[in-house]
Amino acid sequence: MAQEFLEKKGLTHLNNRGEAQMVDVSGKPITQRRAIAQGQIRMALSTLEAIEQGNAPKGDVITTAKLAGIMAAKQTAQLIPLCHPLPLHKIQVEIECDRHLPGYQIRATVGTKAETGVEMEALTAVSLAALTLYDMAKALDKTMTIEGIQVIEKTGGQSQTSDK
Amino acid sequence: MAQEFLEKKGLTHLNNRGEAQMVDVSGKPITQRRAIAQGQIRMALSTLEAIEQGNAPKGDVITTAKLAGIMAAKQTAQLIPLCHPLPLHKIQVEIECDRHLPGYQIRATVGTKAETGVEMEALTAVSLAALTLYDMAKALDKTMTIEGIQVIEKTGGQSQTSDK
Amino acid sequence: MAQEFLEKKGLTHLNNRGEAQMVDVSGKPITQRRAIAQGQIRMALSTLEAIEQGNAPKGDVITTAKLAGIMAAKQTAQLIPLCHPLPLHKIQVEIECDRHLPGYQIRATVGTKAETGVEMEALTAVSLAALTLYDMAKALDKTMTIEGIQVIEKTGGQSQTSDK
Amino acid sequence: MAQEFLEKKGLTHLNNRGEAQMVDVSGKPITQRRAIAQGQIRMALSTLEAIEQGNAPKGDVITTAKLAGIMAAKQTAQLIPLCHPLPLHKIQVEIECDRHLPGYQIRATVGTKAETGVEMEALTAVSLAALTLYDMAKALDKTMTIEGIQVIEKTGGQSQTSDK
Amino acid sequence: MAQEFLEKKGLTHLNNRGEAQMVDVSGKPITQRRAIAQGQIRMALSTLEAIEQGNAPKGDVITTAKLAGIMAAKQTAQLIPLCHPLPLHKIQVEIECDRHLPGYQIRATVGTKAETGVEMEALTAVSLAALTLYDMAKALDKTMTIEGIQVIEKTGGQSQTSDK
Amino acid sequence: MAQEFLEKKGLTHLNNRGEAQMVDVSGKPITQRRAIAQGQIRMALSTLEAIEQGNAPKGDVITTAKLAGIMAAKQTAQLIPLCHPLPLHKIQVEIECDRHLPGYQIRATVGTKAETGVEMEALTAVSLAALTLYDMAKALDKTMTIEGIQVIEKTGGQSQTSDK
Repeated sequence: MAQEFLEKKGLTHLNNRGEAQMVDVSGKPITQRRAIAQGQIRMALSTLEAIEQGNAPKGDVITTAKLAGIMAAKQTAQLIPLCHPLPLHKIQVEIECDRHLPGYQIRATVGTKAETGVEMEALTAVSLAALTLYDMAKALDKTMTIEGIQVIEKTGGQSQTSDK
Repeated sequence: MAQEFLEKKGLTHLNNRGEAQMVDVSGKPITQRRAIAQGQIRMALSTLEAIEQGNAPKGDVITTAKLAGIMAAKQTAQLIPLCHPLPLHKIQVEIECDRHLPGYQIRATVGTKAETGVEMEALTAVSLAALTLYDMAKALDKTMTIEGIQVIEKTGGQSQTSDK
Repeated sequence: MAQEFLEKKGLTHLNNRGEAQMVDVSGKPITQRRAIAQGQIRMALSTLEAIEQGNAPKGDVITTAKLAGIMAAKQTAQLIPLCHPLPLHKIQVEIECDRHLPGYQIRATVGTKAETGVEMEALTAVSLAALTLYDMAKALDKTMTIEGIQVIEKTGGQSQTSDK
Repeated sequence: MAQEFLEKKGLTHLNNRGEAQMVDVSGKPITQRRAIAQGQIRMALSTLEAIEQGNAPKGDVITTAKLAGIMAAKQTAQLIPLCHPLPLHKIQVEIECDRHLPGYQIRATVGTKAETGVEMEALTAVSLAALTLYDMAKALDKTMTIEGIQVIEKTGGQSQTSDK
Repeated sequence: MAQEFLEKKGLTHLNNRGEAQMVDVSGKPITQRRAIAQGQIRMALSTLEAIEQGNAPKGDVITTAKLAGIMAAKQTAQLIPLCHPLPLHKIQVEIECDRHLPGYQIRATVGTKAETGVEMEALTAVSLAALTLYDMAKALDKTMTIEGIQVIEKTGGQSQTSDK
Repeated sequence: MAQEFLEKKGLTHLNNRGEAQMVDVSGKPITQRRAIAQGQIRMALSTLEAIEQGNAPKGDVITTAKLAGIMAAKQTAQLIPLCHPLPLHKIQVEIECDRHLPGYQIRATVGTKAETGVEMEALTAVSLAALTLYDMAKALDKTMTIEGIQVIEKTGGQSQTSDK
């Protein structure tokens, strides 16, 4: 009963006894896959201005956050218990200053050629880039919030559905 | 000029040439410190119901997310480039079903006795718990969003300020 | 002399001077491979009963041990010096209460499509699941023993032999 | 009811709702602590002889297993979900050939000065040393078994009891 | 302008806005690739003699350094921010005593079948083997220097050029 | 005999049977400790100029290398088999363009308050910063060499000697 329900509904990380497992992807074809995730960090305008000014000569705050995102994407399978370890062919993290937020918009694009998708890698990259921005500005601002982390595009795999 | 500005404003991860560094905390006293962070994942009500029903017999989705948060907190200094490696004395992750969201409310409490605070550990725990919930439900729902990740309490250190 | 001996006998991690190396698998065909390992943890019956009763409402002890096993399998090549890093397509850890032992029976199944086998991944999953059960019950019982860790099935590769 | 039971019985990794947590050790005194664990790997006598002969000139099999045990002890808190990250002051792994087993006896001694004990570090060192011996001999022998992993001494902490 | 310059010159880790990224290798063919790197550690002759004599019965210093090199090669993508995670088919580290240096010559050979090369893995293996030799002899000698770390052979990929 | 020799000479990573161990530092006092290491990467002048020009707008090459050095310092005990895991209070990596080399001069300063020193952390930071510079310029230049990695200052501990 419950099993049928789960199978229909697709909670594929739970096996037919409701227990956690890393699902078997060995029967899936290897295809080019890409996922794009985004998110943002909201902060006081004065914090944003301090980063932008302090940042101007060297770009370190933004670069540090980008690198943290890229490196975290490569650690996704170590961080998320039921994710498959995958080769990754491309990881790009973009961070844009948004004075209207105010804060930063973060976007991560991850590509691979594998049996399963990379949206968790993209989401992990966005999350760690945001946390790193937080870390570097937290002495200035105790009220920052990380928001809107979501997948905005996923290609490859059957009918573009999330099947990892 | 820029240096004076940075010193006054407190972008302590940037040294006086605007470059990234892991700030020296050796002069700080060791005190009991605690940080609490929260966040949430929003999903379709049908997704929430599927998890809650499928979850009933074993609790695996929620437990998996909690453990991912706890384990990620212990990895914080490896994930966030300029964070100090710290001993951690307590990590607790709580996840509550919220039918009004609909989705889950996540809260992490981290404690230590150290020269610097643990808000990044608490934020990292919340973020990875949320990402793990996402991972386990993503076959059901492509529109989930992770939101509202913020620090809600920080004690210990000078005047309760963020000084890591 | 010694070299010939080693070649015949198959101590393939030692090269012809008796030194450690990670053996070259690039000439091997990529095939579907699977390994199953098992093991057990023996404890006082009162410990087992405490876990089973305390465990009932949330399943946390067993789930935590399973997840530790799954996550450790993904770390095998970082933990065992001469293991090859491999993609993994499936990891399943099963833990059964055995009142006759008394204790828990643990079984791990790992699958991949690669040049070399995954028995070390399966054995690592069993070992860390057992260690995690130990960790969670050690306040109750100082006399637990982990036993009988072995490979019970290995398929794929030439003549089903261990050739990693 | 269940809570009282757990408190009395000491399943300290479960909080009063039966959920997993990393227990708070901040109230505990820092003391010198030491733990010794042991285990063994059983193999065919011919396998043991092959290792001992091949091993003679360089000692690589045994040294590799010792180092794997030492390095794994340092990773314990990353591998076992609810273990505390601790400084470690000493890690020693001893491996003795036992022709009567036949196989190898493994013993690990770990020391620290901390709020909680190091038996999990000692058990992890023994387990990974045994797995590494398995890995290095598996081309010779498909019937090896890892056995008898247990704590044989634990000092430091209140009344020498396991309280991590 | 700058972009064209970069494209011509090949600073492929910088995208057309001069920002860090992990370059997209998904369009590249999978080929057999191999890289060999070398380096050396220079020390006092008396240090070298102490290691060689102390080392004789067990070979531990050299074996420890080799294993550190092999294990580090497998961590390359976690250590070097813009490196791609790759399967590795072979890792060999050789360390030779050189009384004329005096010190040790280190050489690492790494092989894979992938879209991009493995020279960073070979260089990382040499570097960590050298650092481990340093660590094991540093109580004897404060003047050791690690030198001459370079790639000496790279095969596979287009026209044997470095394109990772 | 051999043991006495080793004890006198100070190969403290080898115990009295010549085997690898992580030495016991629990009897040592906790003191403020600092180590500074340096090294350099030599490259073609045209490569240096390309980096400096491409680098101007964003500083990414240098920042990426600095961050890689800082993050690697935090991983030292995972990378070097017999190093003790330590809290780190300060990590600074400086990279200066040297047109006379031509190439980059790298310097790392690490501080802690612990029972043992941090020269391996400083050397590891320099090594990984150098490897990252190599990685980012390798498409331009196949003849780069990493050189002169050494400790230039070590304070704290008994008589400023290396005793880790």
